[in-house]
Amino acid sequence: MITEIHIEQALKELFDNIVFTREPAGLYDPLRYMIAIGGKRIRPRLCLTTYGLYKESFDQSILQPAAALEVFHSFTLIHDDIMDRSPLRRGVPTVWKKWNEDTAILSGDVMNIDAYKRIACAPANVLPQVLKLFSDTAAQVCDGQQLDMDFESRTDVPMDEYMQMIGLKTGVLIACAAKMGALIAGASETDCEELYAYGYNLGLAFQVADDYLDAFGDEAVFGKPIGGDIVNNKKCWLTTHALEKAGEAREELLEALAMPAETEVERVMKIATVKDIYTDLSVDEDAKYEILRLNNLALEHAAKICNGIRYEQLRRFADKLVGRTK
Amino acid sequence: MITEIHIEQALKELFDNIVFTREPAGLYDPLRYMIAIGGKRIRPRLCLTTYGLYKESFDQSILQPAAALEVFHSFTLIHDDIMDRSPLRRGVPTVWKKWNEDTAILSGDVMNIDAYKRIACAPANVLPQVLKLFSDTAAQVCDGQQLDMDFESRTDVPMDEYMQMIGLKTGVLIACAAKMGALIAGASETDCEELYAYGYNLGLAFQVADDYLDAFGDEAVFGKPIGGDIVNNKKCWLTTHALEKAGEAREELLEALAMPAETEVERVMKIATVKDIYTDLSVDEDAKYEILRLNNLALEHAAKICNGIRYEQLRRFADKLVGRTK
Repeated sequence: MITEIHIEQALKELFDNIVFTREPAGLYDPLRYMIAIGGKRIRPRLCLTTYGLYKESFDQSILQPAAALEVFHSFTLIHDDIMDRSPLRRGVPTVWKKWNEDTAILSGDVMNIDAYKRIACAPANVLPQVLKLFSDTAAQVCDGQQLDMDFESRTDVPMDEYMQMIGLKTGVLIACAAKMGALIAGASETDCEELYAYGYNLGLAFQVADDYLDAFGDEAVFGKPIGGDIVNNKKCWLTTHALEKAGEAREELLEALAMPAETEVERVMKIATVKDIYTDLSVDEDAKYEILRLNNLALEHAAKICNGIRYEQLRRFADKLVGRTK
Repeated sequence: MITEIHIEQALKELFDNIVFTREPAGLYDPLRYMIAIGGKRIRPRLCLTTYGLYKESFDQSILQPAAALEVFHSFTLIHDDIMDRSPLRRGVPTVWKKWNEDTAILSGDVMNIDAYKRIACAPANVLPQVLKLFSDTAAQVCDGQQLDMDFESRTDVPMDEYMQMIGLKTGVLIACAAKMGALIAGASETDCEELYAYGYNLGLAFQVADDYLDAFGDEAVFGKPIGGDIVNNKKCWLTTHALEKAGEAREELLEALAMPAETEVERVMKIATVKDIYTDLSVDEDAKYEILRLNNLALEHAAKICNGIRYEQLRRFADKLVGRTK
């Protein structure tokens, strides 16, 4: 079995030395930039982890498809940042801000294609399935972004629609990562499907945790200013749940969410007001419970196909991913 | 052998009934729109033509990859139109104009992914090669667009660089179409490479012909206003060649190219002035010769691998594609 230390080493080698094969002026600099500022490599890490449940060592037929997941994820961030007009990502300027919009569009396109080049390294005998899984997932991620943008112009989004959106935007790619590792390792269909469900629920838990931390996290740990979703009127699990639960406090909540946030004083006021209502409604506690519920659901699927040290590895992965809220 | 009539029928069925499988609000309407306004289906037509040199009938394993070429081409047009700020395409509003930029970015992305879904229908035994061919080509097309944009801020682009750019932006996808049909039909490596060279040179001839027709074509046949490249100061084969050839007329040409084109009167004046210099320099005749030279080069490659009615089919295809300038 492959341990976390091996996975860590493999990821470091993979992304320290990542090569984009073609070199026309300027087109590949944003790709290197995005990979360099990249965070925890969650998707390739999960892909290598599930592969490691079945195999003893890595080769390019798993390493490159794992890298494809990160490259694809980075591509979606580059294009999302244009659409969301986000100036910063992980504390540094986004690609469209640092270069320009045209460069961000085209570099994103080439990154999407680069991801497919890496997917093509999967073993020939499972390539059709891997390719189908990846393309289906990729299209769903676009669907999720479209829904997310559609939500911006709606005042009331029911929780089931919100969960569907984050399932598409975040869940399916993490699910795809978990399944792809198993698929390339030659695991059974049952194992692949259970790992997909593990990844999907973990992805939901991860996103709800992100929403929670955006309002209630520790800025030093979270890595970006607290209250960003509130300031930017971004639909998230907390607003969605709060609006469904508010009852008589509904008007008060809507007024708080409509508060201006132009100046620093206004921002501090708005964040404090909204968070007070959240706390009064126990929305923070509900979020923590929901994260735990989704996390446990993920682990139930993991438990169906493995136990002992293999199960422990999937449990530790989940813990690292969503454990920040505990 | 498969005849042009069968190919025509197959293309009609393929694009009349094209289905985009997923349906979130608004994301797939631009795809249908782009396919509906689509022109001559050059790339799928060529792919089916080279396949037909070796096979007697079509099935989904060739039809879907052929469709992928058209879908991919449409995706690049959607994104290019954003970058080039083009309001019209084939006489109707471009996607970013008709919807908005965000929709154009995201619909383009999902179209790129849709192309890969169709590529995945290629027979499993050649899928790795087909996938590699397609991804390499796709990345080159992006490189070509980057070079095209880089050229905008340069006054002097040598002819070899211009030909390299149109080779990437137009040549390689037509070459890919020709090779892919043969590859899926199980043709030899030699045949595949000669057909690639046939397609590449044909692609160059097609682009030079397009540049020629933009200044010297018949508006009714060409399908868009004559002189667009001159009005928009777009680098094309004619300007590139004229600047290299101008000699003492160079200053006069540069002045003509720098003329304003804001009003209708200015546009008419500018087009007439530039075309006069082109004609004085015989740039129009040189272009016709270059198109013929590239067309013949393409046919030399075709002649290396087939003769009789098979060769005739490739000759007629070339004739239809670039014969408009004769």
